[in-house]
Amino acid sequence: MSGNTFGTLFRLTTFGESHGSAIGGIIDGCPAGLSIDFEFIQHDLNRRKPGQSNIVTQRSESDRVEFLSGIVNGHTLGTPIGFIIKNENQHPEDYNHINDVYRPSHADYTYDAKYGIRDNRGGGRSSARETASRVVAGAIAKLILKKYGVSIYAYTSQVGDISLSKDYHQLDFSKIESNDVRCPDDLVAAEMIKSIEQVRKAGDTIGGVISCVINGTPVGLGEPVFDKLHSDLGKAMLSINAVKGFEYGSGFDGAKMTGSAHNDLFIPKHNQDGNQNPPLTKTNHSGGIQGGISNGEDIYFRVAFKPVATIMQNQETINSKGEATEMKGKGRHDACVLPRAVPIVEAMAALVIVDHLFKNRNSKI
Amino acid sequence: MSGNTFGTLFRLTTFGESHGSAIGGIIDGCPAGLSIDFEFIQHDLNRRKPGQSNIVTQRSESDRVEFLSGIVNGHTLGTPIGFIIKNENQHPEDYNHINDVYRPSHADYTYDAKYGIRDNRGGGRSSARETASRVVAGAIAKLILKKYGVSIYAYTSQVGDISLSKDYHQLDFSKIESNDVRCPDDLVAAEMIKSIEQVRKAGDTIGGVISCVINGTPVGLGEPVFDKLHSDLGKAMLSINAVKGFEYGSGFDGAKMTGSAHNDLFIPKHNQDGNQNPPLTKTNHSGGIQGGISNGEDIYFRVAFKPVATIMQNQETINSKGEATEMKGKGRHDACVLPRAVPIVEAMAALVIVDHLFKNRNSKI
Amino acid sequence: MSGNTFGTLFRLTTFGESHGSAIGGIIDGCPAGLSIDFEFIQHDLNRRKPGQSNIVTQRSESDRVEFLSGIVNGHTLGTPIGFIIKNENQHPEDYNHINDVYRPSHADYTYDAKYGIRDNRGGGRSSARETASRVVAGAIAKLILKKYGVSIYAYTSQVGDISLSKDYHQLDFSKIESNDVRCPDDLVAAEMIKSIEQVRKAGDTIGGVISCVINGTPVGLGEPVFDKLHSDLGKAMLSINAVKGFEYGSGFDGAKMTGSAHNDLFIPKHNQDGNQNPPLTKTNHSGGIQGGISNGEDIYFRVAFKPVATIMQNQETINSKGEATEMKGKGRHDACVLPRAVPIVEAMAALVIVDHLFKNRNSKI
Amino acid sequence: MSGNTFGTLFRLTTFGESHGSAIGGIIDGCPAGLSIDFEFIQHDLNRRKPGQSNIVTQRSESDRVEFLSGIVNGHTLGTPIGFIIKNENQHPEDYNHINDVYRPSHADYTYDAKYGIRDNRGGGRSSARETASRVVAGAIAKLILKKYGVSIYAYTSQVGDISLSKDYHQLDFSKIESNDVRCPDDLVAAEMIKSIEQVRKAGDTIGGVISCVINGTPVGLGEPVFDKLHSDLGKAMLSINAVKGFEYGSGFDGAKMTGSAHNDLFIPKHNQDGNQNPPLTKTNHSGGIQGGISNGEDIYFRVAFKPVATIMQNQETINSKGEATEMKGKGRHDACVLPRAVPIVEAMAALVIVDHLFKNRNSKI
Repeated sequence: MSGNTFGTLFRLTTFGESHGSAIGGIIDGCPAGLSIDFEFIQHDLNRRKPGQSNIVTQRSESDRVEFLSGIVNGHTLGTPIGFIIKNENQHPEDYNHINDVYRPSHADYTYDAKYGIRDNRGGGRSSARETASRVVAGAIAKLILKKYGVSIYAYTSQVGDISLSKDYHQLDFSKIESNDVRCPDDLVAAEMIKSIEQVRKAGDTIGGVISCVINGTPVGLGEPVFDKLHSDLGKAMLSINAVKGFEYGSGFDGAKMTGSAHNDLFIPKHNQDGNQNPPLTKTNHSGGIQGGISNGEDIYFRVAFKPVATIMQNQETINSKGEATEMKGKGRHDACVLPRAVPIVEAMAALVIVDHLFKNRNSKI
Repeated sequence: MSGNTFGTLFRLTTFGESHGSAIGGIIDGCPAGLSIDFEFIQHDLNRRKPGQSNIVTQRSESDRVEFLSGIVNGHTLGTPIGFIIKNENQHPEDYNHINDVYRPSHADYTYDAKYGIRDNRGGGRSSARETASRVVAGAIAKLILKKYGVSIYAYTSQVGDISLSKDYHQLDFSKIESNDVRCPDDLVAAEMIKSIEQVRKAGDTIGGVISCVINGTPVGLGEPVFDKLHSDLGKAMLSINAVKGFEYGSGFDGAKMTGSAHNDLFIPKHNQDGNQNPPLTKTNHSGGIQGGISNGEDIYFRVAFKPVATIMQNQETINSKGEATEMKGKGRHDACVLPRAVPIVEAMAALVIVDHLFKNRNSKI
Repeated sequence: MSGNTFGTLFRLTTFGESHGSAIGGIIDGCPAGLSIDFEFIQHDLNRRKPGQSNIVTQRSESDRVEFLSGIVNGHTLGTPIGFIIKNENQHPEDYNHINDVYRPSHADYTYDAKYGIRDNRGGGRSSARETASRVVAGAIAKLILKKYGVSIYAYTSQVGDISLSKDYHQLDFSKIESNDVRCPDDLVAAEMIKSIEQVRKAGDTIGGVISCVINGTPVGLGEPVFDKLHSDLGKAMLSINAVKGFEYGSGFDGAKMTGSAHNDLFIPKHNQDGNQNPPLTKTNHSGGIQGGISNGEDIYFRVAFKPVATIMQNQETINSKGEATEMKGKGRHDACVLPRAVPIVEAMAALVIVDHLFKNRNSKI
Repeated sequence: MSGNTFGTLFRLTTFGESHGSAIGGIIDGCPAGLSIDFEFIQHDLNRRKPGQSNIVTQRSESDRVEFLSGIVNGHTLGTPIGFIIKNENQHPEDYNHINDVYRPSHADYTYDAKYGIRDNRGGGRSSARETASRVVAGAIAKLILKKYGVSIYAYTSQVGDISLSKDYHQLDFSKIESNDVRCPDDLVAAEMIKSIEQVRKAGDTIGGVISCVINGTPVGLGEPVFDKLHSDLGKAMLSINAVKGFEYGSGFDGAKMTGSAHNDLFIPKHNQDGNQNPPLTKTNHSGGIQGGISNGEDIYFRVAFKPVATIMQNQETINSKGEATEMKGKGRHDACVLPRAVPIVEAMAALVIVDHLFKNRNSKI
């Protein structure tokens, strides 16, 4: 009820401030008997952690997850899975200069206003560090989805003005991890990386867009009318730090179209002979979801991220008394959060799909 | 849990198919002692109902709400408010031709797949008729918000390619209701209306964008980390029929910006003397929400609607056996749903703000 | 969140005051494809309604349920089932004398204190009339349970000092409906009825106990640690008007026992040859639930009801100003609520079992 | 949804098996600015922990709670409070003998049946060790309640056949902690202790009853109709290991009474002059709750505990193949769980009252 739980049947509750002793969470609703691939989970955590490449923050944190319950001999028990990730390499002194300063476009002001108190050792609860817990739960959700043949691919499709013009069908998702920016087109990736380097040298930051494709989703997921599959995906994405927008299928471009152009015509079955996985519709402007329910086609969506608020430039701001002051970012921050956000987008998507998979079990008698 | 409830502390549960005997809902969590302005509620319902103007469907339904509980002598009791809206003017015969046909980009196929059964008298539960119940609850939420000085203004800002270029600060919201398309700029509105007429004559439909501005929101609403204020607004909007995208503040444009350009600098208090409602920040790319919590500035967002799927043109499709067939829309449908969706966007926004207002009461000891 | 919803996956939300225009509810989460036996539902409603016999209130209400959605051609659609029961035979003038009076051991005082307003046409929301909606939903839950071979039998086992001494194994549940008090032992029933008549003639009321046996529950229902099967049954029963206590299995008597006497020893399988439904344990002090999870044995529990608060005798009381006044019940009230509460106990039990049946589907991968 | 979360606005989610590395939980919804008295919390934990006296198990565990988040400089931040209690002094070899054996009246069989897998190092998730996490959260809830003047007193009122005959008004609650059995009457306590010693020497166990009195509860807590204050208290108590029954106010005895004897007559205000905390009613059979809402009078209830299932005697049982086998408890177990359950009852009561305190804030406009 206070916002730290996500999901209903497969649910994650997280805790932890960026500079406290640990962050972590509890996964409730994971079925018993799931084989846990610990390396797979740690691998996803590593994709999110700082210090992976030149274009992300150079903080080095080992981000090791410790499971405290719910798993015995590598198998889930059906009981809640408690886990923690210790906070290492804390440099709270990096934040001494902002003890009483409201950093622009951060959550310092609003946390103070809401709670009357604020953990000023860094972002505290508002730090994106919290998302490491989501990646852990998302990785377990992915292990469940593997059993259902569902795959989730997220990738950086835009950094500032540089964007992938190719449709996702033309991309080779196996290349996503081949470059530092996690864009599955090496040429565009190189441009993006160059752009991020430039921005970083200027002490600035840059936004972008992450695209995500889910294939293999069973038909029938999504609970009309309020818990439509895309509503829950949208909420999930919008809950990630720095996200400003979400669109699925035709998205904002669909608003410009006519019905005759937008409608996805069904393909008769007899035209599909010999096709192993025959497509249901000629086009897929619906983004794999109709009336809030998955139709079995690819689900795809785009998530807009604003530029990171911490910049290495002087900025005018105020302190808690409302007095003018000036500040400049210190410490080790990302010039572009997109590469590290890719596994977070995947994780949140996995949580949503598993939750709806479980909900859907009661749709028929 | 099956998707027909929205909200946690101020919550709406709806029921009803488009061609059943009635739709309706239960509002739970409305505080006692609220004076109910029945005309205000009916007025919002009238803004949503069909047959208001030439550019929307000519179905005439009186859409009269009947309250069955929770209100005595015009005041709420603190008990659940049950209400129904009878379905009149039903022409189920308009749907005989599609009994066994899956209309393209409708929910016929997915409902059948999910439930193994479908109400084929029109859209059934997937019809936008359900949103009338949301407008009733939203109007009651607005009555609560009035007491807190919160105002919500939604308007059509784009129809197909025609869009309002003005920033919302330059608009006169009192003009929203002055034209059939609910765009607060008469010249642009005229263009939009003309465009809709053309599309309608061609038996086609067109999408668009609704913008919404909320002012007067108290500081502190929003529950980090999963129930951020904008995450809940996003989910609310994405749950409206035909919505394909949501962005708030700088939105997808923010993805192109640098941090130095995007950051909203705080204005020191001493610069604000004499100003009744001094702005907090120089710019408002944050859209009134920072770290998921309202900062007191205007909240603004945009909602993308795809074109209505029912068109008055022949379309190839399939029946429930997967066999090729052809169909053409019959009955009375909207060529553009935007004008009627304006009060729905407002209603969903109101539900979210009230819910968070109530949640926020427990943020401090 | 405000208490008018019960259940998570199979959930009922109710509305309505005793003297408003109607009561009713929404059932969300009922699977699609269930055949609805309307007579069965109405029959359960009739068992609850007033005026059935000499020992209950002589108010005559037809208590006809009207379904507004979720059912087409006698089958559920998987969409929410909205229903109403109109309030007839209202005699609000029966309550004129207590407009401003707090009836002893009623909810008048607490509703006023909590809400600052009160529907003083009878009990309003606090009236047991609300339970009619529960009986409707419970009857639908029973239809689901029939498919799983689960049967629920509730009966009056105590009225005042008169109690059934027989264990439930010795009773013939087919006799429950054979007498007005719904006690499956005709001799004890006769005593109970006589006792109620005496009490009624004295203008007084009397409490009692309802026992309930559920057989055929699948093994594995119940979610440890907080949502144990018996915890949810207990909450369900305690939410019924006038209930003061709940015990299951050995109950309060179990508190007096030693472990060696109380433990239910398992019966080896080879001793069970030839037995169709071999018992799992030699005794069943566990009441069919171990560690909060059903073990397949009979679930049985007892529910204590206090005497009805409305008596036909003068009582000293106060008005809303705290001034002394006197009052006497008017209208048509029950001298003993037990016979009419039997179907309510069954209904709440059915709601709990179905909800847990659905929850349990995700316990294993 | 899978049962490991309790509460809605002040909510606790727990994790942990008895013989895993740690147990713990997350408290979400604790308001910011609460001063945390760590000694007070540890003191409550110590009251629950094993090894306190001769009449409870001699396992020695330090049961030290470590807070990982949500608290800075001794004050809550309004963010989730994550905590762990490491499992020390594990003797999993104590359980080797029951690896594949279903202990009578334990949860071994039902966990295996439900999950298809079981942590057989002791009770795993079904162990009462989990309640240590509840005591931590309950202690924080008590710190909140102190600010509202609410006090909770639980005590052992019955052990086997020995029960306190005194009404709670005649007891001196300051004596609860003066003896090992936590009964506020030294003579009865001595009898109880003697009885437990005898039972223990016989390798047996014994059940009992814990009574609880809450005073100072504000008027108005409780959400009709399903979330009545006593329904939630009942569910809370029934979720504690070994609990078989719950009654409040007149309880099962109330079932024997007539309305004229049971009704709590209101006391006019003018009769109360000079009284600081004038009683509202002449009697309090209602147990401080009317219509599910607190009326400001003392709330009191009784909780029945069955005898501990682990006995130091040979018992016939079966293994997972259903074959006959024999077993005898090993290790260090309680002969009577009541003394250690007293702080658990208090903790669960505190969680319920705080949750309802927060819910009630939205009852009036």
